[in-house]
Amino acid sequence: MGARYRSGKLTNEFALIGRLRERFADIGDDAAVVEPPEGPLLLAADSVVGGVHADLSKVGLDDVGWKAVVVNVSDIAAMGGRPLYLLVTVAAPAGTDLERLFDGIAEAAHAYVCPVVGGDLSRADCLVVTVAVAGTVDGTPVLRSGARPGEWIYVTGPLGAAAASGWTRRPLARVAEGVDARAAGATAMIDVSDGLAADLTHLADASGVGFALDEVPVAPGATVDQALGGGEDYELVFTTPVAGSAVGFRIGRCTDDPAERTLEGRPLPALGWEHSW
Amino acid sequence: MGARYRSGKLTNEFALIGRLRERFADIGDDAAVVEPPEGPLLLAADSVVGGVHADLSKVGLDDVGWKAVVVNVSDIAAMGGRPLYLLVTVAAPAGTDLERLFDGIAEAAHAYVCPVVGGDLSRADCLVVTVAVAGTVDGTPVLRSGARPGEWIYVTGPLGAAAASGWTRRPLARVAEGVDARAAGATAMIDVSDGLAADLTHLADASGVGFALDEVPVAPGATVDQALGGGEDYELVFTTPVAGSAVGFRIGRCTDDPAERTLEGRPLPALGWEHSW
Repeated sequence: MGARYRSGKLTNEFALIGRLRERFADIGDDAAVVEPPEGPLLLAADSVVGGVHADLSKVGLDDVGWKAVVVNVSDIAAMGGRPLYLLVTVAAPAGTDLERLFDGIAEAAHAYVCPVVGGDLSRADCLVVTVAVAGTVDGTPVLRSGARPGEWIYVTGPLGAAAASGWTRRPLARVAEGVDARAAGATAMIDVSDGLAADLTHLADASGVGFALDEVPVAPGATVDQALGGGEDYELVFTTPVAGSAVGFRIGRCTDDPAERTLEGRPLPALGWEHSW
Repeated sequence: MGARYRSGKLTNEFALIGRLRERFADIGDDAAVVEPPEGPLLLAADSVVGGVHADLSKVGLDDVGWKAVVVNVSDIAAMGGRPLYLLVTVAAPAGTDLERLFDGIAEAAHAYVCPVVGGDLSRADCLVVTVAVAGTVDGTPVLRSGARPGEWIYVTGPLGAAAASGWTRRPLARVAEGVDARAAGATAMIDVSDGLAADLTHLADASGVGFALDEVPVAPGATVDQALGGGEDYELVFTTPVAGSAVGFRIGRCTDDPAERTLEGRPLPALGWEHSW
């Protein structure tokens, strides 16, 4: 956890690191020392960039911190896993309200029961909050590549809310749903960060299958296009040979034609989602 | 590994992530699935910021990538550990030569035998390269807090080269030296990222000891002040009850007065180091 500042004096630099340590008591040595999981080690990292993923005139820095944690926890959830530890690295302009940023990070770390065990602070000309997460899974992780023709496609909740509202202040990662889906026999899974059409295409491509959707659950106030193309809902979409899964909504089926991507028999519209929060 | 771009089209976004995947073949699913270590899990994360830690008119983007890996590997080395896996998260302005950046990252990952297993790319108004590292240690990790009065202080190599030259293009992490120091009975250890005076003070504070230095090995072309105050050498400083350690140079001794910080009996000058590469 080397402190690296150019413009600040050393005293300020260490004071800032000290604030990070005060907020996250587990931060101490050069590297954090934690118990390794008994099962597979899951690792992911992702950034939230001020002005790109977060319009700082609309959202608070606590919301930025929350989101930076949640997008990573969601990546663990999409494996059927659970998060264990967080590393938080902040590059921020002078004058950034770091306390408020840390508030949101701490709230998400608490909500998902994964302590911040390390990290770093740097001065920069723009705000970049990077979180890395270590997690594990109680059994075999659910990859994107495990779907087979004939299997059913489920989603853990209605979609399009983030697109309909323009942004979601405090998105949620579906950790419990992912664990339940894995336990119920999920063969492939991904989180809906870029939109159902895009993310299900990633899953189908990785698995070498096509998909035929019957219907998509649409969040209140959202359109079908927003449910298909809107990102940042962080629901999980998964496949399973079990037709009557108790987890989520059944939306369609995997097919043996890798080129097939249909909704109600019609080709899926090409929908892009530009993350904007 | 959610791709998050605002200004790019989805196709460009995925193409960029695709380039990251092509370069680092182990990147695939939402989270990387790797074997957990048998010993303790070590976790650290740190950023290199363009214009702050790296003057981009003086260093190549490959050197930035190299350094971003090495500062993290050095944090693992300072525990007596070895790196296992890297996560690389890049926030970069449009037009950044990502291939060259990836070159340096790949070279360092190869040099330290720790594959890049995940990460993310985002557009931003400034360049922030964040690396998280997972590692382990074959035995008990060496903390900063284990030094005791009467123990000897060693450093793994001469200091001040980075300060004397203004920057170091390709700094090295002392993984083998850290492993050797731990095996030889090191009780506390830290890497010299902020300067010997500052980093040894961190170690002494954490251990509740003072220190009396006899001499400091000075790199060719450097001054004693640069050896004491210059950072970014990434040598390791450690303490041990063994007077004749075969690892490194003996530079002094821990004392029972926590306020003592002396060189040749005189108080250590207050030296600050502003990272500038």
